[in-house]
Amino acid sequence: MARTRRQEELYAVAAELFRTKGYHGTSIQDLAEALGIQRGSLYAHIERKEELLYGITLEAAQAFLSALEPLQEASGSPLEKLERAFVAHARVVADHLPAASVFFHEWQHLHGEAREEILSLRHRYEELWRRLVKDAFPRADERLAVRWILGGLNWMYQWYRPEGALSPEDLARRFYRYATEGIGGMVHG
Amino acid sequence: MARTRRQEELYAVAAELFRTKGYHGTSIQDLAEALGIQRGSLYAHIERKEELLYGITLEAAQAFLSALEPLQEASGSPLEKLERAFVAHARVVADHLPAASVFFHEWQHLHGEAREEILSLRHRYEELWRRLVKDAFPRADERLAVRWILGGLNWMYQWYRPEGALSPEDLARRFYRYATEGIGGMVHG
Repeated sequence: MARTRRQEELYAVAAELFRTKGYHGTSIQDLAEALGIQRGSLYAHIERKEELLYGITLEAAQAFLSALEPLQEASGSPLEKLERAFVAHARVVADHLPAASVFFHEWQHLHGEAREEILSLRHRYEELWRRLVKDAFPRADERLAVRWILGGLNWMYQWYRPEGALSPEDLARRFYRYATEGIGGMVHG
Repeated sequence: MARTRRQEELYAVAAELFRTKGYHGTSIQDLAEALGIQRGSLYAHIERKEELLYGITLEAAQAFLSALEPLQEASGSPLEKLERAFVAHARVVADHLPAASVFFHEWQHLHGEAREEILSLRHRYEELWRRLVKDAFPRADERLAVRWILGGLNWMYQWYRPEGALSPEDLARRFYRYATEGIGGMVHG
Protein backbone atom coordinates (compact mmCIF):
# COMPACT_ATOMS: atom_id res chain seq x y z
CA MET A 1 0.00 0.00 0.00
CA ALA A 2 1.44 3.37 -0.99
CA ARG A 3 2.16 5.68 1.91
CA THR A 4 1.46 9.39 2.05
CA ARG A 5 4.42 11.69 2.62
CA ARG A 6 3.27 12.19 6.20
CA GLN A 7 3.27 8.44 6.70
CA GLU A 8 6.76 8.12 5.21
CA GLU A 9 7.95 10.69 7.69
CA LEU A 10 6.16 8.93 10.51
CA TYR A 11 7.79 5.59 9.65
CA ALA A 12 11.25 7.16 9.44
CA VAL A 13 10.83 8.91 12.79
CA ALA A 14 9.46 5.73 14.39
CA ALA A 15 12.37 3.62 13.10
CA GLU A 16 14.85 6.06 14.59
CA LEU A 17 13.04 6.23 17.93
CA PHE A 18 12.53 2.45 18.17
CA ARG A 19 16.22 2.01 17.43
CA THR A 20 17.46 4.40 20.09
CA LYS A 21 14.79 4.06 22.82
CA GLY A 22 13.46 0.61 22.02
CA TYR A 23 9.93 -0.19 20.81
CA HIS A 24 8.44 -0.29 24.29
CA GLY A 25 10.44 2.75 25.35
CA THR A 26 8.83 4.87 22.60
CA SER A 27 5.43 6.30 23.45
CA ILE A 28 2.81 7.68 21.08
CA GLN A 29 3.58 10.98 22.78
CA ASP A 30 7.30 10.66 21.79
CA LEU A 31 6.29 10.02 18.19
CA ALA A 32 3.93 12.99 18.11
CA GLU A 33 6.56 15.29 19.61
CA ALA A 34 9.24 14.16 17.15
CA LEU A 35 6.83 14.92 14.31
CA GLY A 36 5.69 18.20 15.84
CA ILE A 37 2.03 17.23 15.79
CA GLN A 38 -0.65 16.54 18.39
CA ARG A 39 -0.88 13.09 19.87
CA GLY A 40 -4.45 12.78 18.64
CA SER A 41 -3.45 13.65 15.05
CA LEU A 42 -1.20 10.59 14.96
CA TYR A 43 -4.26 8.38 14.96
CA ALA A 44 -5.26 9.81 11.60
CA HIS A 45 -2.25 7.96 10.20
CA ILE A 46 -2.03 4.77 12.26
CA GLU A 47 -4.31 2.79 14.52
CA ARG A 48 -1.75 1.28 16.88
CA LYS A 49 1.96 1.61 17.61
CA GLU A 50 2.55 -2.03 16.66
CA GLU A 51 1.43 -1.14 13.12
CA LEU A 52 4.59 0.98 12.84
CA LEU A 53 6.78 -1.83 14.17
CA TYR A 54 5.25 -4.19 11.64
CA GLY A 55 5.67 -1.72 8.78
CA ILE A 56 9.31 -1.05 9.63
CA THR A 57 10.33 -4.69 10.00
CA LEU A 58 8.40 -5.65 6.86
CA GLU A 59 10.17 -2.97 4.85
CA ALA A 60 13.56 -4.12 6.14
CA ALA A 61 12.74 -7.76 5.41
CA GLN A 62 11.68 -6.86 1.88
CA ALA A 63 14.82 -4.78 1.33
CA PHE A 64 17.03 -7.73 2.35
CA LEU A 65 15.04 -10.17 0.21
CA SER A 66 14.97 -7.91 -2.86
CA ALA A 67 18.73 -7.48 -2.60
CA LEU A 68 19.42 -11.21 -2.50
CA GLU A 69 16.73 -12.74 -4.70
CA PRO A 70 18.18 -11.59 -8.06
CA LEU A 71 21.40 -13.46 -7.25
CA GLN A 72 19.57 -16.78 -7.56
CA GLU A 73 19.30 -16.43 -11.32
CA ALA A 74 22.38 -14.32 -11.84
CA SER A 75 25.41 -15.44 -13.82
CA GLY A 76 28.78 -15.88 -12.19
CA SER A 77 30.53 -18.53 -10.11
CA PRO A 78 29.12 -19.56 -6.72
CA LEU A 79 31.93 -17.63 -4.99
CA GLU A 80 31.24 -14.51 -7.04
CA LYS A 81 27.57 -14.70 -6.13
CA LEU A 82 28.44 -15.16 -2.49
CA GLU A 83 30.61 -12.06 -2.56
CA ARG A 84 27.80 -10.09 -4.19
CA ALA A 85 25.46 -11.29 -1.41
CA PHE A 86 27.85 -9.85 1.20
CA VAL A 87 27.88 -6.54 -0.63
CA ALA A 88 24.10 -6.51 -1.07
CA HIS A 89 23.48 -7.27 2.60
CA ALA A 90 25.92 -4.66 3.89
CA ARG A 91 24.38 -2.11 1.53
CA VAL A 92 20.91 -2.72 2.97
CA VAL A 93 22.19 -2.45 6.56
CA ALA A 94 23.96 0.83 5.74
CA ASP A 95 21.06 2.31 3.73
CA HIS A 96 18.37 1.35 6.25
CA LEU A 97 20.32 1.54 9.49
CA PRO A 98 17.41 2.38 11.85
CA ALA A 99 15.01 -0.06 10.15
CA ALA A 100 17.68 -2.79 10.09
CA SER A 101 18.32 -2.37 13.82
CA VAL A 102 14.59 -2.64 14.47
CA PHE A 103 14.39 -5.69 12.19
CA PHE A 104 17.29 -7.37 14.01
CA HIS A 105 16.09 -6.70 17.51
CA GLU A 106 12.69 -5.10 18.07
CA TRP A 107 10.79 -7.49 15.77
CA GLN A 108 10.43 -9.82 18.77
CA HIS A 109 7.81 -7.48 20.21
CA LEU A 110 5.43 -8.25 17.32
CA HIS A 111 2.43 -10.48 17.98
CA GLY A 112 0.22 -12.92 16.09
CA GLU A 113 0.12 -12.92 12.31
CA ALA A 114 2.52 -10.00 11.94
CA ARG A 115 5.11 -11.89 13.96
CA GLU A 116 4.55 -15.07 11.95
CA GLU A 117 4.94 -13.19 8.68
CA ILE A 118 8.21 -11.54 9.72
CA LEU A 119 9.56 -14.84 11.05
CA SER A 120 8.74 -16.54 7.78
CA LEU A 121 10.48 -13.78 5.78
CA ARG A 122 13.53 -14.15 8.05
CA HIS A 123 13.56 -17.87 7.38
CA ARG A 124 13.19 -17.34 3.65
CA TYR A 125 16.11 -14.93 3.71
CA GLU A 126 18.33 -17.33 5.66
CA GLU A 127 17.37 -20.08 3.25
CA LEU A 128 18.62 -17.96 0.32
CA TRP A 129 21.94 -17.54 2.17
CA ARG A 130 22.18 -21.25 2.92
CA ARG A 131 21.82 -22.05 -0.77
CA LEU A 132 24.51 -19.55 -1.74
CA VAL A 133 26.89 -21.00 0.87
CA LYS A 134 26.08 -24.59 -0.11
CA ASP A 135 26.78 -23.82 -3.78
CA ALA A 136 30.12 -22.23 -2.90
CA PHE A 137 31.15 -24.78 -0.22
CA PRO A 138 29.25 -28.02 -0.88
CA ARG A 139 30.77 -29.85 2.10
CA ALA A 140 30.23 -27.05 4.64
CA ASP A 141 27.61 -27.07 7.39
CA GLU A 142 25.68 -24.30 5.67
CA ARG A 143 23.30 -23.68 8.57
CA LEU A 144 26.13 -22.93 11.00
CA ALA A 145 28.14 -21.05 8.37
CA VAL A 146 25.19 -18.75 7.65
CA ARG A 147 24.78 -18.02 11.36
CA TRP A 148 28.43 -17.06 11.45
CA ILE A 149 28.21 -14.88 8.33
CA LEU A 150 24.98 -13.10 9.22
CA GLY A 151 26.22 -12.52 12.77
CA GLY A 152 29.34 -10.81 11.49
CA LEU A 153 27.43 -8.75 8.91
CA ASN A 154 24.43 -7.87 11.08
CA TRP A 155 26.65 -6.70 13.93
CA MET A 156 27.43 -3.75 11.67
CA TYR A 157 24.26 -2.16 13.05
CA GLN A 158 26.20 -1.68 16.33
CA TRP A 159 29.29 0.01 14.96
CA TYR A 160 28.83 1.12 11.33
CA ARG A 161 28.94 4.88 10.81
CA PRO A 162 28.46 6.44 7.36
CA GLU A 163 31.41 8.77 8.00
CA GLY A 164 33.80 5.82 8.53
CA ALA A 165 36.82 5.27 6.28
CA LEU A 166 35.45 2.19 4.53
CA SER A 167 32.28 2.13 2.43
CA PRO A 168 29.72 -0.61 3.08
CA GLU A 169 30.94 -2.29 -0.13
CA ASP A 170 34.58 -2.24 1.05
CA LEU A 171 33.58 -3.62 4.43
CA ALA A 172 31.51 -6.34 2.78
CA ARG A 173 34.37 -7.42 0.52
CA ARG A 174 36.77 -7.65 3.45
CA PHE A 175 34.25 -9.67 5.43
CA TYR A 176 33.71 -11.91 2.42
CA ARG A 177 37.41 -12.72 2.47
CA TYR A 178 37.40 -13.28 6.23
CA ALA A 179 34.48 -15.66 5.77
CA THR A 180 35.87 -17.58 2.83
CA GLU A 181 39.63 -17.53 3.43
CA GLY A 182 39.90 -16.69 7.11
CA ILE A 183 41.55 -13.70 8.71
CA GLY A 184 44.98 -15.09 7.91
CA GLY A 185 43.94 -15.66 4.31
CA MET A 186 43.60 -11.94 3.76
CA VAL A 187 47.29 -11.50 4.43
CA HIS A 188 48.49 -13.89 1.79
CA GLY A 189 45.58 -13.51 -0.64
CA MET B 1 29.13 -5.57 46.95
CA ALA B 2 27.66 -8.94 47.97
CA ARG B 3 24.01 -9.37 47.08
CA THR B 4 21.37 -10.96 49.27
CA ARG B 5 19.56 -14.00 47.91
CA ARG B 6 16.53 -11.83 47.25
CA GLN B 7 18.69 -9.44 45.24
CA GLU B 8 20.22 -12.32 43.26
CA GLU B 9 16.71 -13.42 42.37
CA LEU B 10 15.72 -9.88 41.49
CA TYR B 11 18.69 -9.47 39.14
CA ALA B 12 18.00 -12.80 37.44
CA VAL B 13 14.32 -11.95 36.93
CA ALA B 14 15.22 -8.46 35.68
CA ALA B 15 17.75 -9.82 33.17
CA GLU B 16 15.15 -12.21 31.77
CA LEU B 17 12.47 -9.48 31.54
CA PHE B 18 14.82 -6.88 30.03
CA ARG B 19 15.88 -9.48 27.48
CA THR B 20 12.38 -10.43 26.38
CA LYS B 21 10.45 -7.16 26.85
CA GLY B 22 13.29 -4.68 26.61
CA TYR B 23 14.49 -2.40 29.42
CA HIS B 24 11.90 0.30 28.78
CA GLY B 25 9.19 -2.30 28.22
CA THR B 26 9.70 -3.71 31.73
CA SER B 27 7.92 -1.81 34.50
CA ILE B 28 8.59 -1.96 38.23
CA GLN B 29 5.15 -3.57 38.39
CA ASP B 30 6.31 -6.34 35.98
CA LEU B 31 9.34 -6.99 38.17
CA ALA B 32 7.26 -7.13 41.36
CA GLU B 33 4.76 -9.51 39.77
CA ALA B 34 7.47 -11.82 38.46
CA LEU B 35 8.93 -11.98 41.98
CA GLY B 36 5.53 -12.38 43.61
CA ILE B 37 6.01 -9.36 45.87
CA GLN B 38 4.40 -5.95 46.25
CA ARG B 39 5.62 -3.12 44.10
CA GLY B 40 6.53 -1.13 47.20
CA SER B 41 8.66 -3.97 48.58
CA LEU B 42 10.90 -3.79 45.54
CA TYR B 43 12.21 -0.47 46.73
CA ALA B 44 13.67 -2.18 49.80
CA HIS B 45 16.12 -3.82 47.37
CA ILE B 46 16.76 -1.18 44.72
CA GLU B 47 16.30 2.55 44.36
CA ARG B 48 15.75 2.79 40.63
CA LYS B 49 15.20 0.45 37.70
CA GLU B 50 18.38 1.70 36.03
CA GLU B 51 20.33 0.26 38.98
CA LEU B 52 19.28 -3.18 37.78
CA LEU B 53 20.32 -2.44 34.21
CA TYR B 54 23.69 -1.25 35.46
CA GLY B 55 24.15 -4.31 37.71
CA ILE B 56 23.28 -6.73 34.93
CA THR B 57 25.51 -5.16 32.28
CA LEU B 58 28.36 -4.79 34.79
CA GLU B 59 28.14 -8.46 35.73
CA ALA B 60 28.17 -9.48 32.07
CA ALA B 61 31.12 -7.20 31.31
CA GLN B 62 33.05 -8.66 34.23
CA ALA B 63 32.23 -12.22 33.16
CA PHE B 64 33.60 -11.54 29.67
CA LEU B 65 36.71 -9.82 31.03
CA SER B 66 37.45 -12.52 33.63
CA ALA B 67 37.15 -15.16 30.95
CA LEU B 68 39.65 -13.46 28.65
CA GLU B 69 42.17 -11.81 30.98
CA PRO B 70 43.94 -15.02 32.08
CA LEU B 71 44.78 -15.75 28.44
CA GLN B 72 47.13 -12.76 28.39
CA GLU B 73 49.67 -14.54 30.59
CA ALA B 74 48.79 -18.09 29.56
CA SER B 75 51.19 -20.40 27.78
CA GLY B 76 50.45 -21.65 24.28
CA SER B 77 50.82 -20.35 20.74
CA PRO B 78 48.94 -17.23 19.64
CA LEU B 79 46.55 -19.40 17.64
CA GLU B 80 45.90 -21.69 20.61
CA LYS B 81 45.16 -18.67 22.78
CA LEU B 82 42.83 -17.28 20.15
CA GLU B 83 40.92 -20.56 20.03
CA ARG B 84 40.62 -20.52 23.82
CA ALA B 85 39.26 -16.97 23.63
CA PHE B 86 36.51 -18.17 21.26
CA VAL B 87 35.62 -20.95 23.70
CA ALA B 88 35.70 -18.61 26.71
CA HIS B 89 33.49 -16.02 25.01
CA ALA B 90 30.92 -18.57 23.81
CA ARG B 91 30.84 -20.10 27.29
CA VAL B 92 29.99 -16.72 28.85
CA VAL B 93 27.24 -16.06 26.29
CA ALA B 94 25.74 -19.51 26.93
CA ASP B 95 26.04 -19.35 30.74
CA HIS B 96 24.69 -15.81 31.03
CA LEU B 97 22.27 -15.70 28.11
CA PRO B 98 19.81 -13.11 29.49
CA ALA B 99 22.56 -10.89 30.93
CA ALA B 100 24.62 -11.17 27.73
CA SER B 101 21.60 -10.08 25.62
CA VAL B 102 21.11 -7.11 27.93
CA PHE B 103 24.82 -6.32 27.75
CA PHE B 104 24.78 -6.45 23.94
CA HIS B 105 21.69 -4.39 23.46
CA GLU B 106 19.98 -2.74 26.42
CA TRP B 107 23.19 -1.18 27.82
CA GLN B 108 22.53 1.79 25.54
CA HIS B 109 19.75 2.90 27.86
CA LEU B 110 22.25 3.60 30.66
CA HIS B 111 23.11 7.20 31.50
CA GLY B 112 25.98 9.20 32.94
CA GLU B 113 28.78 7.49 34.81
CA ALA B 114 27.22 4.04 34.60
CA ARG B 115 27.17 4.33 30.82
CA GLU B 116 30.76 5.57 30.72
CA GLU B 117 31.92 2.69 32.91
CA ILE B 118 30.22 0.03 30.78
CA LEU B 119 31.55 1.63 27.59
CA SER B 120 35.07 1.62 28.99
CA LEU B 121 34.77 -2.07 29.97
CA ARG B 122 33.53 -2.85 26.46
CA HIS B 123 36.53 -1.06 25.00
CA ARG B 124 38.91 -2.88 27.34
CA TYR B 125 37.39 -6.19 26.30
CA GLU B 126 37.69 -5.39 22.59
CA GLU B 127 41.27 -4.33 23.18
CA LEU B 128 42.07 -7.74 24.67
CA TRP B 129 40.64 -9.34 21.55
CA ARG B 130 42.60 -7.05 19.27
CA ARG B 131 45.84 -8.08 20.93
CA LEU B 132 45.01 -11.76 20.60
CA VAL B 133 44.19 -11.31 16.92
CA LYS B 134 47.29 -9.21 16.30
CA ASP B 135 49.51 -11.85 17.93
CA ALA B 136 47.97 -14.58 15.81
CA PHE B 137 47.79 -12.57 12.56
CA PRO B 138 50.37 -9.75 12.73
CA ARG B 139 49.47 -8.35 9.32
CA ALA B 140 45.70 -8.40 9.78
CA ASP B 141 43.52 -5.32 10.34
CA GLU B 142 42.82 -6.38 13.92
CA ARG B 143 40.12 -3.78 14.53
CA LEU B 144 38.01 -4.97 11.63
CA ALA B 145 38.80 -8.63 12.31
CA VAL B 146 37.60 -8.29 15.92
CA ARG B 147 34.36 -6.70 14.73
CA TRP B 148 33.85 -9.67 12.46
CA ILE B 149 34.67 -12.22 15.17
CA LEU B 150 32.63 -10.62 17.95
CA GLY B 151 29.70 -10.14 15.57
CA GLY B 152 29.66 -13.83 14.70
CA LEU B 153 30.05 -14.91 18.33
CA ASN B 154 27.71 -12.37 19.89
CA TRP B 155 24.95 -13.20 17.42
CA MET B 156 24.65 -16.49 19.34
CA TYR B 157 22.38 -14.60 21.73
CA GLN B 158 19.77 -14.65 18.95
CA TRP B 159 19.82 -18.34 18.11
CA TYR B 160 21.72 -20.35 20.74
CA ARG B 161 19.57 -22.82 22.68
CA PRO B 162 21.04 -25.00 25.47
CA GLU B 163 19.16 -28.01 24.08
CA GLY B 164 20.87 -27.71 20.66
CA ALA B 165 23.09 -30.48 19.28
CA LEU B 166 26.38 -28.62 19.70
CA SER B 167 27.78 -27.41 23.02
CA PRO B 168 29.02 -23.81 23.30
CA GLU B 169 32.58 -25.19 23.17
CA ASP B 170 31.87 -27.13 19.96
CA LEU B 171 30.26 -24.08 18.39
CA ALA B 172 33.18 -21.89 19.45
CA ARG B 173 35.75 -24.27 17.95
CA ARG B 174 33.88 -24.39 14.64
CA PHE B 175 33.65 -20.62 14.59
CA TYR B 176 37.33 -20.38 15.40
CA ARG B 177 38.05 -22.41 12.29
CA TYR B 178 35.67 -20.32 10.19
CA ALA B 179 37.44 -17.20 11.44
CA THR B 180 40.99 -18.43 10.94
CA GLU B 181 40.72 -20.73 7.91
CA GLY B 182 37.46 -19.66 6.32
CA ILE B 183 34.36 -21.72 5.71
CA GLY B 184 36.08 -23.62 2.94
CA GLY B 185 39.05 -24.32 5.19
CA MET B 186 36.89 -26.43 7.47
CA VAL B 187 36.32 -28.88 4.64
CA HIS B 188 39.96 -29.64 4.00
CA GLY B 189 41.26 -29.05 7.54
